Amino acid sequence: MNTVTTAGPAHASAPANLYAPVAGDLAEVERILAEALRSRHPRVAAVVDHVRHYRGKRLRPVLLLLTARACGPVTPAHHVLGAVVEMIHTATLVHDDVLDSATVRRHVPTVNAGWGTQASILLGDHLFTHAFHLASTVDARACRLIGEATNRVCEGELRQGLERGNLELSEGDYFEIIEGKTAELIACCCHLGAIYGGAGEAVADRLARYGRWLGIAFQIADDLLDLVGEERAAGKSLGTDLEQQKLTLPLIRLLQTDTNGTASRVRQILLSPGNHKREALLPCLAEGDALDYARRQAADFAARARAELACLAPSPCRALLELLTEQVIHRDH
Amino acid sequence: MNTVTTAGPAHASAPANLYAPVAGDLAEVERILAEALRSRHPRVAAVVDHVRHYRGKRLRPVLLLLTARACGPVTPAHHVLGAVVEMIHTATLVHDDVLDSATVRRHVPTVNAGWGTQASILLGDHLFTHAFHLASTVDARACRLIGEATNRVCEGELRQGLERGNLELSEGDYFEIIEGKTAELIACCCHLGAIYGGAGEAVADRLARYGRWLGIAFQIADDLLDLVGEERAAGKSLGTDLEQQKLTLPLIRLLQTDTNGTASRVRQILLSPGNHKREALLPCLAEGDALDYARRQAADFAARARAELACLAPSPCRALLELLTEQVIHRDH
Repeated sequence: MNTVTTAGPAHASAPANLYAPVAGDLAEVERILAEALRSRHPRVAAVVDHVRHYRGKRLRPVLLLLTARACGPVTPAHHVLGAVVEMIHTATLVHDDVLDSATVRRHVPTVNAGWGTQASILLGDHLFTHAFHLASTVDARACRLIGEATNRVCEGELRQGLERGNLELSEGDYFEIIEGKTAELIACCCHLGAIYGGAGEAVADRLARYGRWLGIAFQIADDLLDLVGEERAAGKSLGTDLEQQKLTLPLIRLLQTDTNGTASRVRQILLSPGNHKREALLPCLAEGDALDYARRQAADFAARARAELACLAPSPCRALLELLTEQVIHRDH
Repeated sequence: MNTVTTAGPAHASAPANLYAPVAGDLAEVERILAEALRSRHPRVAAVVDHVRHYRGKRLRPVLLLLTARACGPVTPAHHVLGAVVEMIHTATLVHDDVLDSATVRRHVPTVNAGWGTQASILLGDHLFTHAFHLASTVDARACRLIGEATNRVCEGELRQGLERGNLELSEGDYFEIIEGKTAELIACCCHLGAIYGGAGEAVADRLARYGRWLGIAFQIADDLLDLVGEERAAGKSLGTDLEQQKLTLPLIRLLQTDTNGTASRVRQILLSPGNHKREALLPCLAEGDALDYARRQAADFAARARAELACLAPSPCRALLELLTEQVIHRDH
């Protein structure tokens, strides 16, 4: 087991303080989550219980609740939908860990490390279907919006999986993929928060766009972390994109702007067997502008997200939504 | 590649003739399925297109349409829901093939054999979410009923996965597991057919029970096939339950009714490494009453299913529903 499983940084308790305006609502989301996933079968209960340790930033329910409160009152529908989006997100994490053969997530062993691939696949399915069932207790519109978003999440994930090893992947392909696999669900959270908070269509659309740009910025930062982050701080296995031959923005930039034969060295490293691609690539990344280029792109999308918030009256929740556009690009976990 | 990939028996074209009363409706279900899964990304389209070759009996949409027509008119909601249940079923097949490391399904290579584990996991997720999205175009009730059923399907699958290698599994556990993983979705099909066909609550409940008993009979027969069927006729890898140390009814019976030390031989075979468990077990199965016992149980559940049909007026569709109770237990594929 990796050393990052030792009790990690104190970030796990941070959200409750940072998101004080919605802390009570977040607790209600947690209660609904636990209730919906309860099982009377001890073996099922044990593995379901384990994913509660994947307790991270709860970014998706937090966004849903902050956008709700920025527009109007937080309702019981928001609490249920907060649990739904967290469950969908957790399902994709559980399956991602199988795809990446990851052993550590949020400082604890992954489900596949503890229970094997089979249990992980089935647990992910279990979380997906419980999420949809829970959404159906709200109304058909919620089911439709969540269904549409999740369709795009899965198409993005599927495309990314099928493009593995394709070193010709373009920047356009990359942005389409991350818009699907990451930004779509985040946009959906903000959209749902606004709609069920009583916002008009124009405001709901702008908040959905806020979520979309925020999600893209977040994913670019996450991809940078996988390349140059520290495992101890991140609390998860890093370098998995490289091992899986998944091209992310810095690498696409590196392959496109060939200086001093860097591109052919990068190709060679990516296609070589063995598990030390991350270390081998660092000198190539240090040479060109690839890291800076990706960081600038993340900052640009964060700025676009911030601009969309102009549709909201000033409030503590709007201030937190603004703060998040900073946080997603300056992170070590 | 296994020899069973060669063009198999002509069963693939049988359903259209057999189910003539709903053949036009089944064609509409196929159209909706193809439309919902269309992708503009060629790599996604190719793998999605492949699962269309898993074209089998279409048992679930057929049951939904036959129960609908036996109760009243077939509506556009039935066509959409037929596509939804087939999509959910296909998602579970795609994931099951990963769990079983199966290489052949309905006479064609499995997705995992052709595209690998990663693509299979993601394709299964893609099918699940598309199914739920499609259900949301009907109404919240459909989403709720399908969500409830799929929750139980996944809990059954998860329990089965977590009980692998547990040679103490009881008959009660077995029935609970197959009721979840198989019978629940079939019951849901019949329930949906009846409800959206305008049936009253009493008839809808009896048809749901018909589906439940039929599903249990079907799964017992399927488990028998895995033990003593022929791969060429079945069109899929067999013996996978044994390789996975998944106990099914004949084995549970064999372990419970120990005669001449059979139980300890069976235990030894199940726990031994290597891939010839099926051949090794056949003499043990031939000795006792385990196969007969399982066949009788399947016949009993089929008879219970048939009895529920008394709530329907005689019609060609009711006759077909009766015929199905015979077919599910006398099958070689």
